[in-house]
Amino acid sequence: MTEFGSVAIVGLGLIGGSIAAGLKQRGLATVSAWDKDPASLEAGLQASVIDTALNSAAAAAEADILILCVPVQSVAQVLTEIPASDQLITDVGSVKAALIAAVRQARGEVPGNFVPGHPIAGSEKHGVTAANPDLFEQHRVLLTPLAETEPAAVQTVRLLWQALGAEVTEMSPQHHDDVLAQTSHLPHLAAFALVDVLCQGGDSLEVFQYAAGGFRDFSRIAASDPTMWRDVFLTNQEPVLATLDQYIAELGALRDLVAAGDGDQLKAIFERAKAARDHFADLDEARRNG
Amino acid sequence: MTEFGSVAIVGLGLIGGSIAAGLKQRGLATVSAWDKDPASLEAGLQASVIDTALNSAAAAAEADILILCVPVQSVAQVLTEIPASDQLITDVGSVKAALIAAVRQARGEVPGNFVPGHPIAGSEKHGVTAANPDLFEQHRVLLTPLAETEPAAVQTVRLLWQALGAEVTEMSPQHHDDVLAQTSHLPHLAAFALVDVLCQGGDSLEVFQYAAGGFRDFSRIAASDPTMWRDVFLTNQEPVLATLDQYIAELGALRDLVAAGDGDQLKAIFERAKAARDHFADLDEARRNG
Repeated sequence: MTEFGSVAIVGLGLIGGSIAAGLKQRGLATVSAWDKDPASLEAGLQASVIDTALNSAAAAAEADILILCVPVQSVAQVLTEIPASDQLITDVGSVKAALIAAVRQARGEVPGNFVPGHPIAGSEKHGVTAANPDLFEQHRVLLTPLAETEPAAVQTVRLLWQALGAEVTEMSPQHHDDVLAQTSHLPHLAAFALVDVLCQGGDSLEVFQYAAGGFRDFSRIAASDPTMWRDVFLTNQEPVLATLDQYIAELGALRDLVAAGDGDQLKAIFERAKAARDHFADLDEARRNG
Repeated sequence: MTEFGSVAIVGLGLIGGSIAAGLKQRGLATVSAWDKDPASLEAGLQASVIDTALNSAAAAAEADILILCVPVQSVAQVLTEIPASDQLITDVGSVKAALIAAVRQARGEVPGNFVPGHPIAGSEKHGVTAANPDLFEQHRVLLTPLAETEPAAVQTVRLLWQALGAEVTEMSPQHHDDVLAQTSHLPHLAAFALVDVLCQGGDSLEVFQYAAGGFRDFSRIAASDPTMWRDVFLTNQEPVLATLDQYIAELGALRDLVAAGDGDQLKAIFERAKAARDHFADLDEARRNG
């Protein structure tokens, strides 16, 4: 008997595949999976990322633990296909209030055995063929249990992520969505907008040819999956609008300082940003080393 | 006799130091330097980045080639300290129209032996202690000669950069400033603004702790030197304002799409941005490999 028994992954992409590979490689669970795309299951079997391919989402109800790795907008549909039971269920969605609403829609309530979760890890790569058993090593996972969530279920999900090398933190769903709007959703929107502005110029090819290192870092973010990000912005609308409005206001203020030639104010803002970033980089390094 | 004779670097920081180290390591020139900070010259001598430390900017007039590596806003002052001669002069400033205006201010004209230039290379690191003889390998250098610039002078500067491994392109100063406003200056302003917005929140420390990979790429740009960037925005005001206004308008349009829940339009923009970025990444890889 493995530590986590049988785990079913529903949605076998980069994240689902990396969980599966991580559990299997460490001997922590037997892993089955279902995906609407048979090619993903076939690839998962061939790469030994999973032990078994399921014939339906419903079959995932047999496992001890069910991990939903489908887009938040597909969660309600998938949950109506899987019979309710006392199996432990968790998810990996990057938005939590909308996920919880989807669970309520499908089940009429958020069951005590459902633990909303979000691993803060990703890659430019997509699909199960990019699965990496160590993707979550030294990455954070945020769990957002509700008042009705069973503490034992939260503890099992915590242990599962820790066994994959992640650092687990709990917070409320709303706080999660506010923090992620700022640290992840806004940067992606800013990057998509920047690349789109640059490629609207008549000389876009030339602009990209002369792009410097800073732009390269920036544009890497814009290579992220358009469908996934559309869903994030639609399902985390209010927190995204709040932080986006702040960002547009800040850019407007910088614009006025540039137009006025106010070098002192510009430099003060750049110094504040650099100090914050350097502080973050130090924290980040300390965390990775310790 | 080395290929480029004697080269004097005025302003011994990361760029000046890397040019010096690159020339010396390849046996292409004897290199002297002047810097207003004696500690930089001392560090350059100790690391054998330069052969000789000069006692004054004026002494740089003795070299066959003078490379100005001071901020654009210091160029006029430095040029008034260096006697005019027929030595070849070039610079490394990231803004070209303002540089040319500074040369005119100091010399009354842009001499035929002055070749405006800009290596598109940099680093988060600062100072001569971070000098890297291979910093310009496979990087672009843009030269912006005027009608009055001597072709032989342009050719020598081209050969010098090529000898350091760079790929040299010529364009007009105004075109340079427009392109760089889009590909470098705007991304830096966007990154400074993003980090500044995030650190204005009351829970800024927490926000930085949960920052994901995308934000990490983004914030690296905000670690750039605040003084240098203040000067860039003040000296390239009009092209920066033009592209910044486009960016703010684009973000406003995205905001309206998020508020309206218009997933189709959002996805179409993200797909356009991703396609442009992927195309650029392919170009970039082809250039590096070929």
